Amino acid sequence: MMDFIKKLLSTSQEHKSLLCVGLDPSPVLMPDVDILTFNKAIIDSTCDLVCAYKPNLAFYEVLGVEGLTILEKTIKYIPAKIPVIGDAKRGDIGNTARAYAKALFSTFGFDATTVNPYLGFDSIQPFIDYKERGVFILCRTSNKGGADFQDLNCSGSLHLYEAVAQKALEWNVNGNIGLVVGATYPEELKRIRSACPEMCLLIPGVGTQGGDLDSAVNNGVDTNKEKAIINVSRKILYASRGDDFAQAARNMAEEIRVQINSCLVNHNGE
Amino acid sequence: MMDFIKKLLSTSQEHKSLLCVGLDPSPVLMPDVDILTFNKAIIDSTCDLVCAYKPNLAFYEVLGVEGLTILEKTIKYIPAKIPVIGDAKRGDIGNTARAYAKALFSTFGFDATTVNPYLGFDSIQPFIDYKERGVFILCRTSNKGGADFQDLNCSGSLHLYEAVAQKALEWNVNGNIGLVVGATYPEELKRIRSACPEMCLLIPGVGTQGGDLDSAVNNGVDTNKEKAIINVSRKILYASRGDDFAQAARNMAEEIRVQINSCLVNHNGE
Repeated sequence: MMDFIKKLLSTSQEHKSLLCVGLDPSPVLMPDVDILTFNKAIIDSTCDLVCAYKPNLAFYEVLGVEGLTILEKTIKYIPAKIPVIGDAKRGDIGNTARAYAKALFSTFGFDATTVNPYLGFDSIQPFIDYKERGVFILCRTSNKGGADFQDLNCSGSLHLYEAVAQKALEWNVNGNIGLVVGATYPEELKRIRSACPEMCLLIPGVGTQGGDLDSAVNNGVDTNKEKAIINVSRKILYASRGDDFAQAARNMAEEIRVQINSCLVNHNGE
Repeated sequence: MMDFIKKLLSTSQEHKSLLCVGLDPSPVLMPDVDILTFNKAIIDSTCDLVCAYKPNLAFYEVLGVEGLTILEKTIKYIPAKIPVIGDAKRGDIGNTARAYAKALFSTFGFDATTVNPYLGFDSIQPFIDYKERGVFILCRTSNKGGADFQDLNCSGSLHLYEAVAQKALEWNVNGNIGLVVGATYPEELKRIRSACPEMCLLIPGVGTQGGDLDSAVNNGVDTNKEKAIINVSRKILYASRGDDFAQAARNMAEEIRVQINSCLVNHNGE
């Protein structure tokens, strides 16, 4: 399997896109089609516009065994050159973390995943041991509650999320660690990009969550304009609930891709 | 469905047991039987000795769709009066957390689950909104890496894990929040029990992980000797790899149950 970062940069350059589409099917928001049909239509209509896809496992687990079957089929349907990030946010002790890493990278075959740092290094090591896969550690999340603990002053003058970013740099001996930083907190995003100038950042929170796209690009993209993945889910998936949902999703994805690229023209990563 | 805490205390009193068996099937450690047969045999041989069962989802997800099918069948096989804790350690933003809560409590039907606090209140609220289910927030985990962030000084003089415990008390308006505290850190366990005298604590780390059972009981059990769940997985499941594995598991479970009860005789929760 091709190294995650190489695969990401290759697709990103070919498609001139830092946009990732979150494949988070929600029956109450979706048009009246079954989920696999929905996912396939979204993939067909956006696969030349994205650098990656990111299914969040919650939306499949909620459907039980049937949902996991749909997830497997969705992953297989995505063109092989496009990296797939399993948004799982797992975190458990070593023995169990090894099982989760195997589940995500081997059983489901994701190119990358998200992990939760609360349990520390030995909960993350089994993931980074898969050297050719990407591991995005939650750093400053996009939700309001993210402040409850992540913004606490820890470790001297650092906020907890900054202590996490610092450890991520330390732990990144295989070069496959990235960070999840929400677009909804542009100042924090800027601070993390400044602390981790070369790290790949996965940036959710643009769109329905209200994060500003321009500031996400300005604060989150690196100097080389390549190690940032800007994820949008609901705003693209549910651009229309009518029969035109796939075309509407494509139009929205293209609009966002173009807007990202417009911002990048004058971006110097500072 | 019966309230989780009522169900737990009822089973715990009937079986005179604070012991929870972790149903974490690991093919490399197991005797030569299929996983569902293994789980059923373990349940048959220990179900009068436990207060709860706790399957960790990692060991089922690693087997993909087939694993989740086994998990569903395992949950159904457990006698209805015994509470089942889905050890999932999920944590995600509000919209997604709602999907996870529904997955665990409704789709899989667990009586309780474990959650990760890193994403704060709005990631936990969808779980505690299921008032009749139990929600165990990770506080001080049993692994070595637990110290990386959980032991940082945060929020004035508190360690992060203490700040989490404090928030858990605040958030516990439905009375269904508990905390996960590893037996491998007895001092931290004591401090948390002292800060949260009436909260239900889920205590892993006894057995293969090396936590001392006596100090887990002395430091972790409340004054009423009822709101603590002492989890043991590998030491019971893999007491033998031979044909006698179920009887060996029963013997080990009984030995641990008796040892817990011996400690409790002189326990005053201080």
